[in-house]
Amino acid sequence: MGKPNWFDEREALVWQKYRTLMRELQGVQDRQLARASGLSGAEYALLVPLSETPDGVLRARDLGADVGWDRSRVSHQVRRMERRGLVAREPCEDDARGSMVRLTKTGRAAIVAAAPRHVDTVRKYFFSPLSRDEMETLGGFFDRMLHALTQE
Amino acid sequence: MGKPNWFDEREALVWQKYRTLMRELQGVQDRQLARASGLSGAEYALLVPLSETPDGVLRARDLGADVGWDRSRVSHQVRRMERRGLVAREPCEDDARGSMVRLTKTGRAAIVAAAPRHVDTVRKYFFSPLSRDEMETLGGFFDRMLHALTQE
Repeated sequence: MGKPNWFDEREALVWQKYRTLMRELQGVQDRQLARASGLSGAEYALLVPLSETPDGVLRARDLGADVGWDRSRVSHQVRRMERRGLVAREPCEDDARGSMVRLTKTGRAAIVAAAPRHVDTVRKYFFSPLSRDEMETLGGFFDRMLHALTQE
Repeated sequence: MGKPNWFDEREALVWQKYRTLMRELQGVQDRQLARASGLSGAEYALLVPLSETPDGVLRARDLGADVGWDRSRVSHQVRRMERRGLVAREPCEDDARGSMVRLTKTGRAAIVAAAPRHVDTVRKYFFSPLSRDEMETLGGFFDRMLHALTQE
Protein backbone atom coordinates (compact mmCIF):
# COMPACT_ATOMS: atom_id res chain seq x y z
CA MET A 1 0.00 0.00 0.00
CA GLY A 2 1.26 3.51 -0.69
CA LYS A 3 1.27 6.14 1.98
CA PRO A 4 -1.53 8.64 2.27
CA ASN A 5 -0.94 12.25 1.27
CA TRP A 6 1.71 13.40 3.72
CA PHE A 7 4.26 16.10 4.50
CA ASP A 8 7.16 16.83 2.21
CA GLU A 9 10.45 15.34 3.35
CA ARG A 10 11.72 18.32 5.33
CA GLU A 11 8.36 18.95 7.02
CA ALA A 12 8.04 15.27 7.89
CA LEU A 13 11.47 15.33 9.52
CA VAL A 14 10.79 18.40 11.69
CA TRP A 15 7.32 17.11 12.63
CA GLN A 16 8.77 13.75 13.65
CA LYS A 17 11.46 15.48 15.74
CA TYR A 18 8.80 17.54 17.51
CA ARG A 19 6.75 14.40 18.27
CA THR A 20 9.80 12.49 19.48
CA LEU A 21 10.94 15.39 21.64
CA MET A 22 7.51 15.72 23.28
CA ARG A 23 7.38 12.01 24.02
CA GLU A 24 10.96 11.59 25.22
CA LEU A 25 10.94 14.71 27.36
CA GLN A 26 7.66 13.66 28.96
CA GLY A 27 9.05 10.17 29.54
CA VAL A 28 12.22 11.46 31.22
CA GLN A 29 10.21 13.84 33.38
CA ASP A 30 7.71 11.18 34.43
CA ARG A 31 10.41 8.65 35.30
CA GLN A 32 12.42 11.25 37.19
CA LEU A 33 9.34 12.37 39.14
CA ALA A 34 8.24 8.85 40.00
CA ARG A 35 11.75 7.95 41.17
CA ALA A 36 12.39 11.11 43.19
CA SER A 37 8.98 11.84 44.68
CA GLY A 38 6.46 9.11 43.84
CA LEU A 39 4.30 11.73 42.08
CA SER A 40 2.83 11.07 38.63
CA GLY A 41 3.14 13.68 35.89
CA ALA A 42 -0.59 14.43 36.25
CA GLU A 43 -0.28 14.93 40.01
CA TYR A 44 2.70 17.20 39.53
CA ALA A 45 0.84 19.18 36.86
CA LEU A 46 -2.01 19.97 39.30
CA LEU A 47 0.22 20.62 42.32
CA VAL A 48 2.26 23.31 40.52
CA PRO A 49 -0.54 25.89 40.00
CA LEU A 50 -1.91 25.22 43.51
CA SER A 51 1.54 25.81 45.03
CA GLU A 52 1.82 29.10 43.14
CA THR A 53 -1.32 30.68 44.63
CA PRO A 54 -0.94 32.75 47.82
CA ASP A 55 -2.96 30.35 49.99
CA GLY A 56 -2.67 27.07 48.04
CA VAL A 57 -6.30 26.96 46.94
CA LEU A 58 -8.04 27.25 43.55
CA ARG A 59 -11.51 26.66 42.17
CA ALA A 60 -11.53 23.27 40.43
CA ARG A 61 -12.64 25.10 37.26
CA ASP A 62 -9.68 27.51 37.35
CA LEU A 63 -7.28 24.67 38.10
CA GLY A 64 -8.59 22.86 35.02
CA ALA A 65 -8.21 25.98 32.87
CA ASP A 66 -4.66 26.38 34.12
CA VAL A 67 -3.57 22.92 32.99
CA GLY A 68 -5.93 22.75 29.99
CA TRP A 69 -7.92 19.73 31.17
CA ASP A 70 -11.65 19.22 30.92
CA ARG A 71 -13.87 19.09 33.97
CA SER A 72 -14.13 15.30 34.22
CA ARG A 73 -10.38 14.77 33.98
CA VAL A 74 -9.71 17.33 36.72
CA SER A 75 -12.43 15.86 38.88
CA HIS A 76 -11.16 12.28 38.47
CA GLN A 77 -7.56 13.28 39.16
CA VAL A 78 -8.47 15.43 42.18
CA ARG A 79 -10.42 12.54 43.75
CA ARG A 80 -7.38 10.28 43.36
CA MET A 81 -5.11 12.93 44.86
CA GLU A 82 -7.54 13.49 47.73
CA ARG A 83 -7.29 9.79 48.58
CA ARG A 84 -3.50 10.14 48.61
CA GLY A 85 -3.78 13.12 50.96
CA LEU A 86 -2.18 15.56 48.48
CA VAL A 87 -5.20 17.89 48.21
CA ALA A 88 -8.54 18.43 49.95
CA ARG A 89 -11.79 19.36 48.24
CA GLU A 90 -13.98 22.07 49.76
CA PRO A 91 -17.35 23.46 48.77
CA CYS A 92 -17.23 26.69 46.81
CA GLU A 93 -18.83 29.58 48.73
CA ASP A 94 -20.10 31.55 45.77
CA ASP A 95 -20.97 28.65 43.45
CA ALA A 96 -23.01 25.82 44.93
CA ARG A 97 -22.14 23.47 42.05
CA GLY A 98 -18.43 24.35 42.02
CA SER A 99 -15.70 23.08 44.32
CA MET A 100 -12.38 24.35 45.59
CA VAL A 101 -9.16 22.35 45.64
CA ARG A 102 -6.76 23.01 48.50
CA LEU A 103 -3.13 21.90 48.74
CA THR A 104 -2.56 19.93 51.97
CA LYS A 105 0.66 19.95 54.00
CA THR A 106 1.49 16.58 52.43
CA GLY A 107 0.86 17.97 48.95
CA ARG A 108 2.95 21.03 49.69
CA ALA A 109 5.83 18.88 50.97
CA ALA A 110 5.60 16.67 47.85
CA ILE A 111 5.79 19.56 45.40
CA VAL A 112 8.59 21.28 47.33
CA ALA A 113 10.57 18.03 47.27
CA ALA A 114 9.87 17.32 43.59
CA ALA A 115 10.15 20.76 41.98
CA PRO A 116 13.91 21.40 42.07
CA ARG A 117 14.76 18.12 40.34
CA HIS A 118 11.92 18.51 37.87
CA VAL A 119 13.22 21.97 37.01
CA ASP A 120 16.76 20.58 36.68
CA THR A 121 15.50 17.94 34.23
CA VAL A 122 13.78 20.49 32.01
CA ARG A 123 16.81 22.78 32.18
CA LYS A 124 19.18 19.98 31.21
CA TYR A 125 17.30 18.78 28.16
CA PHE A 126 15.25 21.75 27.03
CA PHE A 127 17.20 24.90 27.91
CA SER A 128 20.87 23.93 28.20
CA PRO A 129 21.17 22.82 24.55
CA LEU A 130 20.26 26.39 23.49
CA SER A 131 21.87 29.80 24.02
CA ARG A 132 19.82 32.62 25.56
CA ASP A 133 19.30 34.14 22.11
CA GLU A 134 18.20 30.81 20.67
CA MET A 135 15.77 30.37 23.55
CA GLU A 136 14.24 33.75 22.64
CA THR A 137 14.05 32.68 18.98
CA LEU A 138 12.31 29.46 20.01
CA GLY A 139 9.86 31.42 22.16
CA GLY A 140 9.11 33.61 19.13
CA PHE A 141 8.39 30.55 16.94
CA PHE A 142 6.01 29.20 19.60
CA ASP A 143 4.31 32.62 19.83
CA ARG A 144 3.54 32.59 16.13
CA MET A 145 2.19 29.03 16.23
CA LEU A 146 0.06 29.87 19.27
CA HIS A 147 -1.18 32.99 17.51
CA ALA A 148 -2.26 30.86 14.53
CA LEU A 149 -4.03 28.48 16.92
CA THR A 150 -5.92 31.24 18.72
CA GLN A 151 -7.05 32.78 15.43
CA GLU A 152 -9.45 29.83 15.20
CA MET B 1 2.78 29.89 50.44
CA GLY B 2 5.77 30.84 48.33
CA LYS B 3 6.49 29.03 45.11
CA PRO B 4 9.02 26.24 45.01
CA ASN B 5 12.36 26.78 43.32
CA TRP B 6 11.39 27.43 39.71
CA PHE B 7 12.62 28.69 36.35
CA ASP B 8 13.78 32.25 35.87
CA GLU B 9 11.22 34.51 34.25
CA ARG B 10 12.35 34.02 30.64
CA GLU B 11 12.70 30.25 30.99
CA ALA B 12 9.30 30.00 32.65
CA LEU B 13 7.74 31.89 29.76
CA VAL B 14 9.25 29.71 27.01
CA TRP B 15 8.47 26.53 28.94
CA GLN B 16 4.86 27.61 29.40
CA LYS B 17 4.58 28.41 25.68
CA TYR B 18 5.92 24.96 24.81
CA ARG B 19 3.41 23.28 27.16
CA THR B 20 0.53 25.37 25.83
CA LEU B 21 1.50 24.71 22.23
CA MET B 22 1.68 20.94 22.81
CA ARG B 23 -1.73 20.93 24.46
CA GLU B 24 -3.51 23.25 22.04
CA LEU B 25 -2.08 21.62 18.93
CA GLN B 26 -3.04 18.18 20.22
CA GLY B 27 -6.52 19.48 21.07
CA VAL B 28 -7.05 20.96 17.61
CA GLN B 29 -5.78 17.78 15.95
CA ASP B 30 -7.97 15.51 18.09
CA ARG B 31 -11.10 17.59 17.52
CA GLN B 32 -10.43 17.83 13.80
CA LEU B 33 -9.84 14.06 13.56
CA ALA B 34 -12.94 13.16 15.55
CA ARG B 35 -15.08 15.51 13.45
CA ALA B 36 -13.71 14.49 10.06
CA SER B 37 -13.15 10.77 10.51
CA GLY B 38 -14.37 9.55 13.89
CA LEU B 39 -10.81 8.41 14.70
CA SER B 40 -9.20 9.21 18.04
CA GLY B 41 -5.69 10.63 18.19
CA ALA B 42 -4.43 7.27 19.51
CA GLU B 43 -6.08 5.37 16.66
CA TYR B 44 -4.63 7.77 14.11
CA ALA B 45 -1.18 7.45 15.70
CA LEU B 46 -1.21 3.65 15.21
CA LEU B 47 -2.76 3.71 11.74
CA VAL B 48 -0.06 6.00 10.31
CA PRO B 49 2.94 3.63 10.68
CA LEU B 50 0.83 0.67 9.52
CA SER B 51 -0.25 2.56 6.40
CA GLU B 52 3.38 3.38 5.63
CA THR B 53 4.55 -0.24 5.45
CA PRO B 54 4.49 -1.99 2.05
CA ASP B 55 1.80 -4.52 3.08
CA GLY B 56 0.11 -2.74 5.99
CA VAL B 57 1.42 -5.08 8.68
CA LEU B 58 3.84 -4.66 11.62
CA ARG B 59 4.86 -6.66 14.65
CA ALA B 60 3.02 -5.25 17.68
CA ARG B 61 6.44 -4.64 19.25
CA ASP B 62 7.71 -2.60 16.28
CA LEU B 63 4.46 -0.65 16.12
CA GLY B 64 4.91 0.22 19.80
CA ALA B 65 8.52 1.30 19.22
CA ASP B 66 7.39 3.46 16.33
CA VAL B 67 4.92 5.47 18.41
CA GLY B 68 6.90 5.22 21.67
CA TRP B 69 4.23 3.36 23.66
CA ASP B 70 4.80 0.49 26.08
CA ARG B 71 3.55 -3.01 25.36
CA SER B 72 0.40 -2.83 27.46
CA ARG B 73 -0.75 0.46 25.93
CA VAL B 74 -0.27 -0.87 22.39
CA SER B 75 -2.02 -4.10 23.26
CA HIS B 76 -5.00 -2.32 24.86
CA GLN B 77 -5.35 0.10 21.96
CA VAL B 78 -5.00 -2.63 19.31
CA ARG B 79 -7.76 -4.68 20.96
CA ARG B 80 -10.07 -1.66 20.87
CA MET B 81 -9.21 -1.01 17.23
CA GLU B 82 -9.75 -4.67 16.37
CA ARG B 83 -13.28 -4.42 17.77
CA ARG B 84 -13.83 -1.38 15.55
CA GLY B 85 -12.58 -3.34 12.53
CA LEU B 86 -9.63 -0.99 11.89
CA VAL B 87 -6.93 -3.63 12.36
CA ALA B 88 -6.66 -7.40 12.70
CA ARG B 89 -4.27 -9.26 15.00
CA GLU B 90 -2.39 -12.26 13.68
CA PRO B 91 0.02 -14.69 15.30
CA CYS B 92 3.68 -13.95 14.67
CA GLU B 93 5.34 -16.74 12.68
CA ASP B 94 8.83 -16.42 14.14
CA ASP B 95 7.89 -15.45 17.70
CA ALA B 96 5.21 -17.54 19.43
CA ARG B 97 4.65 -14.88 22.11
CA GLY B 98 4.58 -11.96 19.68
CA SER B 99 1.72 -10.80 17.49
CA MET B 100 1.35 -8.95 14.20
CA VAL B 101 -1.04 -6.07 13.60
CA ARG B 102 -2.54 -5.78 10.14
CA LEU B 103 -4.37 -2.78 8.69
CA THR B 104 -7.82 -3.84 7.42
CA LYS B 105 -9.62 -2.34 4.43
CA THR B 106 -11.72 -0.31 6.87
CA GLY B 107 -8.58 0.91 8.65
CA ARG B 108 -6.95 1.80 5.36
CA ALA B 109 -10.02 3.74 4.23
CA ALA B 110 -10.13 5.58 7.57
CA ILE B 111 -6.51 6.71 7.42
CA VAL B 112 -6.75 7.69 3.74
CA ALA B 113 -9.81 9.80 4.56
CA ALA B 114 -8.29 11.37 7.67
CA ALA B 115 -4.67 12.01 6.64
CA PRO B 116 -5.04 14.96 4.24
CA ARG B 117 -6.99 17.08 6.71
CA HIS B 118 -4.74 16.07 9.56
CA VAL B 119 -1.73 17.13 7.52
CA ASP B 120 -3.48 20.41 6.64
CA THR B 121 -4.07 21.11 10.33
CA VAL B 122 -0.42 20.58 11.24
CA ARG B 123 0.69 22.66 8.27
CA LYS B 124 -1.64 25.51 9.18
CA TYR B 125 -0.58 25.83 12.81
CA PHE B 126 2.91 24.39 12.96
CA PHE B 127 4.58 25.07 9.61
CA SER B 128 2.82 28.04 8.04
CA PRO B 129 3.77 30.46 10.82
CA LEU B 130 7.48 29.84 10.00
CA SER B 131 9.62 30.40 6.92
CA ARG B 132 11.57 27.49 5.42
CA ASP B 133 14.76 28.77 7.07
CA GLU B 134 13.05 29.12 10.43
CA MET B 135 11.70 25.59 10.11
CA GLU B 136 15.29 24.38 9.63
CA THR B 137 16.39 26.40 12.67
CA LEU B 138 13.59 24.85 14.71
CA GLY B 139 14.61 21.37 13.54
CA GLY B 140 18.18 22.14 14.66
CA PHE B 141 16.98 23.19 18.14
CA PHE B 142 15.02 19.95 18.44
CA ASP B 143 18.07 17.97 17.29
CA ARG B 144 20.17 19.39 20.08
CA MET B 145 17.49 18.72 22.72
CA LEU B 146 17.06 15.17 21.43
CA HIS B 147 20.82 14.70 21.47
CA ALA B 148 20.90 15.77 25.15
CA LEU B 149 18.06 13.31 25.87
CA THR B 150 19.79 10.38 24.19
CA GLN B 151 23.05 11.07 26.04
CA GLU B 152 21.31 9.63 29.11
